[in-house]
Amino acid sequence: MASSVTPTPLLKDELDIVIPTIRNLDFLEMWRPFFQQYHLIIVQDGDPSKVIKVPEGFNYELYNRNDINRILGPKASCISFKDSACRCFGYMVSKKKYIFTIDDDCFVAKDPSGNDINALEQHIKNLLSPSTPFFFNTLYDPYREGADFVRGYPFSLREGVPTAVSHGLWLNIPDYDAPTQLVKPRERNTRFVDAVLTIPKGTLFPMCGMNLAFDRELIGPAMYFGLMGDGQPIGRYDDMWAGWCMKVICDHLGLGVKTGLPYIWHSKASNPFVNLKKEYKGIYWQEELIPFFQAATLPKECTTVQSCYKELSKQVKAKLGKVDDYFNKLADAMLTWIEAWDELNPSAKLPNGK
Amino acid sequence: MASSVTPTPLLKDELDIVIPTIRNLDFLEMWRPFFQQYHLIIVQDGDPSKVIKVPEGFNYELYNRNDINRILGPKASCISFKDSACRCFGYMVSKKKYIFTIDDDCFVAKDPSGNDINALEQHIKNLLSPSTPFFFNTLYDPYREGADFVRGYPFSLREGVPTAVSHGLWLNIPDYDAPTQLVKPRERNTRFVDAVLTIPKGTLFPMCGMNLAFDRELIGPAMYFGLMGDGQPIGRYDDMWAGWCMKVICDHLGLGVKTGLPYIWHSKASNPFVNLKKEYKGIYWQEELIPFFQAATLPKECTTVQSCYKELSKQVKAKLGKVDDYFNKLADAMLTWIEAWDELNPSAKLPNGK
Repeated sequence: MASSVTPTPLLKDELDIVIPTIRNLDFLEMWRPFFQQYHLIIVQDGDPSKVIKVPEGFNYELYNRNDINRILGPKASCISFKDSACRCFGYMVSKKKYIFTIDDDCFVAKDPSGNDINALEQHIKNLLSPSTPFFFNTLYDPYREGADFVRGYPFSLREGVPTAVSHGLWLNIPDYDAPTQLVKPRERNTRFVDAVLTIPKGTLFPMCGMNLAFDRELIGPAMYFGLMGDGQPIGRYDDMWAGWCMKVICDHLGLGVKTGLPYIWHSKASNPFVNLKKEYKGIYWQEELIPFFQAATLPKECTTVQSCYKELSKQVKAKLGKVDDYFNKLADAMLTWIEAWDELNPSAKLPNGK
Repeated sequence: MASSVTPTPLLKDELDIVIPTIRNLDFLEMWRPFFQQYHLIIVQDGDPSKVIKVPEGFNYELYNRNDINRILGPKASCISFKDSACRCFGYMVSKKKYIFTIDDDCFVAKDPSGNDINALEQHIKNLLSPSTPFFFNTLYDPYREGADFVRGYPFSLREGVPTAVSHGLWLNIPDYDAPTQLVKPRERNTRFVDAVLTIPKGTLFPMCGMNLAFDRELIGPAMYFGLMGDGQPIGRYDDMWAGWCMKVICDHLGLGVKTGLPYIWHSKASNPFVNLKKEYKGIYWQEELIPFFQAATLPKECTTVQSCYKELSKQVKAKLGKVDDYFNKLADAMLTWIEAWDELNPSAKLPNGK
């Protein structure tokens, strides 16, 4: 019987799925056909005494706040509490080359033909094919089947560069900020855009952590989700912060970032009033953060992600410390994060993590 | 009867459709429902004694080589002959604010629901809504119905900038260079990507002239398609050249360039062996042209398209003249083009053509 043969999925032993959560992981049932053969790293946020139920048959390790404190000791201060930013602890303890991270309110989406989308498989395809950050290809990802580089695309650039990050999108509830949620409470994303594209070098974008994959050997140490939530003046900017830092470093190191496919089905909008409270400082701070990151340059001596990240931390302190003292704290946490990363990943200290 | 009422299409009296051709324009029959109420400017290439038939009911003016020589006198030397680059003469003689240009082997494409795509209407929508060149929006054009700016998009950038150029794509025969045509003779573009996006500031792309619209008041004088074809060492780089010059100038002046929708149906691949002959110098020259345009900066004193273009011509002569003497000739032709443009468009000498 053909149906009794389960094929081995791509990168089965080289990828961890990182899920931050505060609740039972029933959402995994829908993902079973696509996730069950992979290893999960569950980062439990909030009350560590609560028991999180994981559906049977999944292979996982789970870390709650007590585990994080035990493993990192005083360095645990760099890991956020009561905010999905805690997920980056999972990136740090993983021993795999690739990470896929997904929120627990994200379900399997359907393509326009009505077929279930294997989001993870598409992320892997994105990560395993090169990126083209130096010149825009009008037919989008030139490495996809049925596509190529168009007339006028320099041949010397057609080899591309390694892809470090694959940023997936969301059908149904779009990833809007609180003001937009308030103004457009009924807006749903129904447009399936059948494209993957490289974010050009020098261009920043808002990276959402809901449906995201990356090569942790290439870029892992830059994927710090900052200080958010409990005890911090800000929330919901964890993934944004990581995205801006990561993009500056990818541009410097010649690594690629893709966005577009795959879609997941985002089931439920978070409360816009709560979000507004978490976001409002971010909304005005970002007006200074974006110009900072757009202007940031790294010296050519920075050849590892770690050295780039430490340099960026210095610049954050020097230039953003005056925006708010929070950024001095964040700059320190960025260094703590790198120290903790290197402690848990001793081999990753080599150039480019190789 | 509802069917007897023909609604007035968008910008009916503010847009010219420019078509370069060497043959009878039977292809217009398929476009009749969408083009008939607009004015056409037909630029006849090749033998001027040949009579080009235009289907009945279209409102047009037609220029052949004799007309171009008569109107421009010695400055006619800047208009290419035996190459679709001649189309830019149509941009110059137009008196309208907007231009749509299309090749005569392009037909009406269908969207995934099987409906005919009104390419011109989509171009107009692209041109009339702003662009977002300073930060990438992951849900693509934020001004489209059902879309918006995502979380993390700076509010100060949400007004966007005026859109100068709308670059449309092609189903069926993709716009490949000769080597790719030779290697993949059977590749067809069947992927309908339902997106419009702004090419970020600082990013170059290969602009194809097959299905293109622009605001000639904003960017017209930069839309020079260069010296190609008869008597020139190169062909099929006319639109590329215009695209690179135009993008550098749009980036300098804070204007936007969009790509994506609309699709047309490109019916027939041109001969790859003939194309290879036309293209081969371009294929190696572009390896020097792209870095040149990527590095090109314009002084802030250049506040009009004309002054930007003249400055660019100087830089072409200074930096590309040593690649090949052809670029000295081209730099001179760029200046001639601007002189001719200003002669035919005396009011366009004011800042930004306003």
